[in-house]
Amino acid sequence: MTDTAVAPRTPLTLLGTGAMGTALARVWLAAGHEVTVWNRTAARAEPLAAEGATVARTAAEAVAANRLVIACLLDDASVGEALDGAGLAGRDLVNLTTGTPGQGRARAAWAEARGARFLDAGIMAVPPMIGAPDSGGYVFYSGSPELFEEHRDTLAVPAGTRYVGADPGFAALHDVALLSAMSGMFAGITHAFALIRPEDIAPKDFAPLLADWLAAMAPAVHQSADQLQSGDYTRNVVSNLAMQAAGNTTLLRTAEEQRVSPELLTPYMELMERRLAQGHGDEDGTGMVELLDVRGR
Amino acid sequence: MTDTAVAPRTPLTLLGTGAMGTALARVWLAAGHEVTVWNRTAARAEPLAAEGATVARTAAEAVAANRLVIACLLDDASVGEALDGAGLAGRDLVNLTTGTPGQGRARAAWAEARGARFLDAGIMAVPPMIGAPDSGGYVFYSGSPELFEEHRDTLAVPAGTRYVGADPGFAALHDVALLSAMSGMFAGITHAFALIRPEDIAPKDFAPLLADWLAAMAPAVHQSADQLQSGDYTRNVVSNLAMQAAGNTTLLRTAEEQRVSPELLTPYMELMERRLAQGHGDEDGTGMVELLDVRGR
Ligand SMILES: NC(=O)c1ccc[n+]([C@@H]2O[C@H](COP(=O)([O-])OP(=O)(O)OC[C@H]3O[C@@H](n4cnc5c(N)ncnc54)[C@H](OP(=O)(O)O)[C@@H]3O)[C@@H](O)[C@H]2O)c1
Ligand SMILES: NC(=O)c1ccc[n+]([C@@H]2O[C@H](COP(=O)([O-])OP(=O)(O)OC[C@H]3O[C@@H](n4cnc5c(N)ncnc54)[C@H](OP(=O)(O)O)[C@@H]3O)[C@@H](O)[C@H]2O)c1
Repeated sequence: MTDTAVAPRTPLTLLGTGAMGTALARVWLAAGHEVTVWNRTAARAEPLAAEGATVARTAAEAVAANRLVIACLLDDASVGEALDGAGLAGRDLVNLTTGTPGQGRARAAWAEARGARFLDAGIMAVPPMIGAPDSGGYVFYSGSPELFEEHRDTLAVPAGTRYVGADPGFAALHDVALLSAMSGMFAGITHAFALIRPEDIAPKDFAPLLADWLAAMAPAVHQSADQLQSGDYTRNVVSNLAMQAAGNTTLLRTAEEQRVSPELLTPYMELMERRLAQGHGDEDGTGMVELLDVRGR
Repeated sequence: MTDTAVAPRTPLTLLGTGAMGTALARVWLAAGHEVTVWNRTAARAEPLAAEGATVARTAAEAVAANRLVIACLLDDASVGEALDGAGLAGRDLVNLTTGTPGQGRARAAWAEARGARFLDAGIMAVPPMIGAPDSGGYVFYSGSPELFEEHRDTLAVPAGTRYVGADPGFAALHDVALLSAMSGMFAGITHAFALIRPEDIAPKDFAPLLADWLAAMAPAVHQSADQLQSGDYTRNVVSNLAMQAAGNTTLLRTAEEQRVSPELLTPYMELMERRLAQGHGDEDGTGMVELLDVRGR
């Protein structure tokens, strides 16, 4: 007998129907999942009833409804508050709430102590990217590999999945590492636009040059990864720190000429000076990672 | 009569055969240009003689040899020193030496006062990218539009060209703006690698995630350009500053947990706090450009 039956969609519970939770609920509902929702402020969950969701009156009731329980709340503390008193034994708890690696690990221990399997997650998307497979958005998961394997198809409905390990802190760590790098990039972009602002240069003419340049330079991370893994920060160096430091002078003078505060650039330049002072002028930047390490300090 | 003759390659003079000058000279020679080179330290120019270059004994002699004169020296001061006493009248001087917008403008006035047409430039490439059309490297040019039009084919031989305006400061300004943005991105990347370093995560597994994420987020510059051009920093906001500031707390806590100094992230976060304190929580970041403006301060 050939099995041509479509597997039934897994029913699920979603705690939190804020901007992100609502986007998620809609996509699961549209894909044919039975969805039970709960939100602290009930009025914010009601609109989903019209789209087929069951609205639970309490978080405990929502948790009791399904084995797969997904939380998308404000922060880790709100997860603890919402689930306080809910019966988690035998549940599969997937925490889509943003947090730190430490919070992910502590929440995993907390859930396991209550008899639940646990998966932490970090959403690399904004609500409009949910349910849009070509948007580039996805979600990091870490924690119980069994939970992930069992529910990966369901989890893949709203956005792509990236499982990054059994350590429940790794999803948050990957999430925060990427957001931190992006924050640096945005700081650089802010400085760049400030530089051209006093001039007769249309931001829309400048933007494509900037976007292309950053996208072309982002793969420099592979060189850093290679050096970090080999432990040799002088491997395949093209522009060494001594040359880069000379370039910094031009960056700072230009900021001064354009009357732009250099505050977003100086900490990286100062780190470079410290690395140079340690005699590492033949490296190209990756070695500075060590200077950020405050273990033992 | 159909004209099937190939236009003769423009002969040119190149001042400076350091790492970049040598790479440039090789590509022009290989493309069939007559190239006269000069370098302060003559021994560094000699190897190019074997490849067909004429080595001049003085900069003045090199300048006298050809109408098109290209300088690729250490910095703006070295351009002034090298060309002191050379006969520039009637010459087309293209300055590939890195400098500030102000240096580009001053050097243009200096060259014009000596009867030369002038083009300033900013090289967005490292020597291995010169003569490699698919490397993504290119050169910004600004200044005399006539000079650029007349020599654009010759200038395009070593790398792609981007003419950004008659203001001789604009090439340097574009160059520095892109390098400044890259510096911010590299700062963010340094922080990201520092975060994962204490963990059992292979940098080579993490790098592709980081590269893809940054490349995917770089187009956010188009949203900034749109806001800057409209003057409305609240246009099409998805993640507003209030939400981003909440996210910063997670970034800082994670840095603390991982024992990573937050010094590369804090200036951007502080700028965000200042913008928020001004009541702009409904913006998404671009408005911070104004806070970097120190005109009138
Ligand atoms: N939106 C994004 O762009 C984005 C992107 C990536 C990740 N995320 C993450 O997704 C999660 C949800 O974000 P969101 O955009 O949906 O935020 P939101 O619109 O502000 O919604 C927050 C949700 O948390 C609930 N909540 C807050 N405190 C609570 C408490 N003490 N007990 C129970 N529930 C509480 C709120 O309930 P009430 O309605 O009762 O206030 C609401 O359902 C966050 O962790 C966020 O970092 C969001
Ligand atoms: N290399 C890169 O990755 C790169 C990328 C983009 C832009 N650039 C720019 O290209 C230019 C050249 O860089 P490079 O990499 O070729 O540098 P380099 O290898 O250090 O060469 C510097 C050149 O400048 C000459 N020079 C220095 N001071 C001088 C003076 N006072 N008078 C006359 N000549 C002087 C040097 O002559 P001696 O041999 O006598 O010292 C040498 O020819 C710089 O403006 C640099 O910013 C370089």
